[in-house]
Amino acid sequence: MNEKAGKQSIRFGEPPYIIGSAAVAGPKEIDGPMAKYFDRVSEDATFGKDSWEEGESEMVRQAVNMAIQKSGIEKEEIRYIFAGDLLGQIIASTFGIKDMSIPTFGLYGACSTCGEALSLSAMTIAAGYADNVIAEASSHYGSAEKQFRFPLEYGNQRPLSATWTVTGSGAFVVSNRESEVCIKGVTTGKIVDYGVKDSMNMGACMAPAAADVIYQHLQDFGIKPTYYDRIITGDLGKVGKTILTDLLAMNNIDISGNHMDCGIEIFDNDEQDTHSGGSGCGCSATVLAGYILKMVASGEWKRVLFVPTGAMLSTVSFNEGQTIPGIAHAVMIEHHEKGKDV
Amino acid sequence: MNEKAGKQSIRFGEPPYIIGSAAVAGPKEIDGPMAKYFDRVSEDATFGKDSWEEGESEMVRQAVNMAIQKSGIEKEEIRYIFAGDLLGQIIASTFGIKDMSIPTFGLYGACSTCGEALSLSAMTIAAGYADNVIAEASSHYGSAEKQFRFPLEYGNQRPLSATWTVTGSGAFVVSNRESEVCIKGVTTGKIVDYGVKDSMNMGACMAPAAADVIYQHLQDFGIKPTYYDRIITGDLGKVGKTILTDLLAMNNIDISGNHMDCGIEIFDNDEQDTHSGGSGCGCSATVLAGYILKMVASGEWKRVLFVPTGAMLSTVSFNEGQTIPGIAHAVMIEHHEKGKDV
Repeated sequence: MNEKAGKQSIRFGEPPYIIGSAAVAGPKEIDGPMAKYFDRVSEDATFGKDSWEEGESEMVRQAVNMAIQKSGIEKEEIRYIFAGDLLGQIIASTFGIKDMSIPTFGLYGACSTCGEALSLSAMTIAAGYADNVIAEASSHYGSAEKQFRFPLEYGNQRPLSATWTVTGSGAFVVSNRESEVCIKGVTTGKIVDYGVKDSMNMGACMAPAAADVIYQHLQDFGIKPTYYDRIITGDLGKVGKTILTDLLAMNNIDISGNHMDCGIEIFDNDEQDTHSGGSGCGCSATVLAGYILKMVASGEWKRVLFVPTGAMLSTVSFNEGQTIPGIAHAVMIEHHEKGKDV
Repeated sequence: MNEKAGKQSIRFGEPPYIIGSAAVAGPKEIDGPMAKYFDRVSEDATFGKDSWEEGESEMVRQAVNMAIQKSGIEKEEIRYIFAGDLLGQIIASTFGIKDMSIPTFGLYGACSTCGEALSLSAMTIAAGYADNVIAEASSHYGSAEKQFRFPLEYGNQRPLSATWTVTGSGAFVVSNRESEVCIKGVTTGKIVDYGVKDSMNMGACMAPAAADVIYQHLQDFGIKPTYYDRIITGDLGKVGKTILTDLLAMNNIDISGNHMDCGIEIFDNDEQDTHSGGSGCGCSATVLAGYILKMVASGEWKRVLFVPTGAMLSTVSFNEGQTIPGIAHAVMIEHHEKGKDV
């Protein structure tokens, strides 16, 4: 039986599985330490298309199709798709999936979208509403910088607190068919606003939301951080990581020994001049699809808490003097011995 | 038992109920025929704030708080909120609900968002993941025109196919507590693209998606259009209504006798110079919260199919020469005699 756990979590009775995943990324990511785990990396930032936006959609298309292919099921067996990206009106997702003829739930959770999509996918499967669904999220350095900050041609200086939006898409087939990776539960985050107004310091905007959802997750399930091999945030970067561990330490929760941040892992930040780290929906989505799931499937990691983090930045609200609130969603991903009861 | 129905629908075993709703709207809506059903209308388009965007957030805040109040439950009993709007990075929703401390799923389905939010809310309640959740959607004429078309000060001429974005927010408390209105099932729409590229003719962009989801809904549940007292689309307007009825007629489905469109009902289109009709997430959301639910609760209408319709318009994709695909989601809303089995 599925059950409500604590204040804002769900524990699944029969945990859904991730039976296929794919990571597609761009030219900057090729030189990063994660590239070898990705299914496809492209030297061409437009992925053979005419614009960054169309390129991002092409990346979405490739990731979804590859995830389905790797899962071994047919596209016709996919009942729903939960997808989103950073662009206004989520055009990267829309144009990426529009010809697939799959009922669609469009999502916006900024860079936490991968967590939101996986949560709703797992909830849908565990409730018996579908046998197979897709969760997908993407971002693109070119389309995101153009929308949120400066034209790339302007070549603005980036402070050391800035992160670099990952060009990448991660797609996942969530299913009731058994595999080595299951989703045991989810904790849905609240919007948390500490009043930060610096669009070049996304880590500081998101860290309070990450701390809030991790704290609540541990409370709701009555577990300690050491329950997990890794607690993995999305794209806090170096600045956000420090704030997160400090905030949790103030609540007597120590994650310093097993915390990992996808934004810190995806680039060689000193060599690649990416400053605080990588960011964007595609950051946590590709690192999960490419690297983390392999570690869990092999059993090297038995349990991870995956916590994509989002900053609700908009140029409109930002220019009108508003803050940048954060949100984060936590997904309990665990190794599963095939044939064993969960 | 909840069950999958046909290709893209869900039939709920124990249908969730709508136990509270509220509609808040703006100055143009005051002169429309629906105004008398709304909970609050404001002469001030900024709702006492400094900008249209902040005004839209204020409208969201008021609608959500009023819906909770009318439902008779406490805010602390709300487990999740499903919300979205038309603005980039859904800032109207984010800033409207950020201080409520409720776990949040941000959605983007263009003007179909109310249907998407109600679908996910009903799925969440019927699965036992929560006792009470909120579904909410909003739009604002000022913030939407500024984002999607021309500055209002420019005073551009609007063709007769154009619709007028509704300034309004509708909020709903979906619950497992009995009320006179229940949600029997949902049909989730696919993105449908007929290649329309006219941003001043949203009706034509959305009608194929509405036809697709209505057709599939009737197939999935094995029912005829006459099962419903009304089949109610979101904001097709006069142009879209004609296309919808024609498209369905080509498939031998006649909805001409019981079709209604919120966009046609919300304004006195001839008197108010709103041309094809009203549009925006707030159009279907306020007409549902204010008018339709009263008709269903009283039993005047026993069954309605509520089908908010969205056009995936973005200035970026539009200016890059892309089409404007549509999406629509169908929600089966029925009168419930308290105390009777459903």
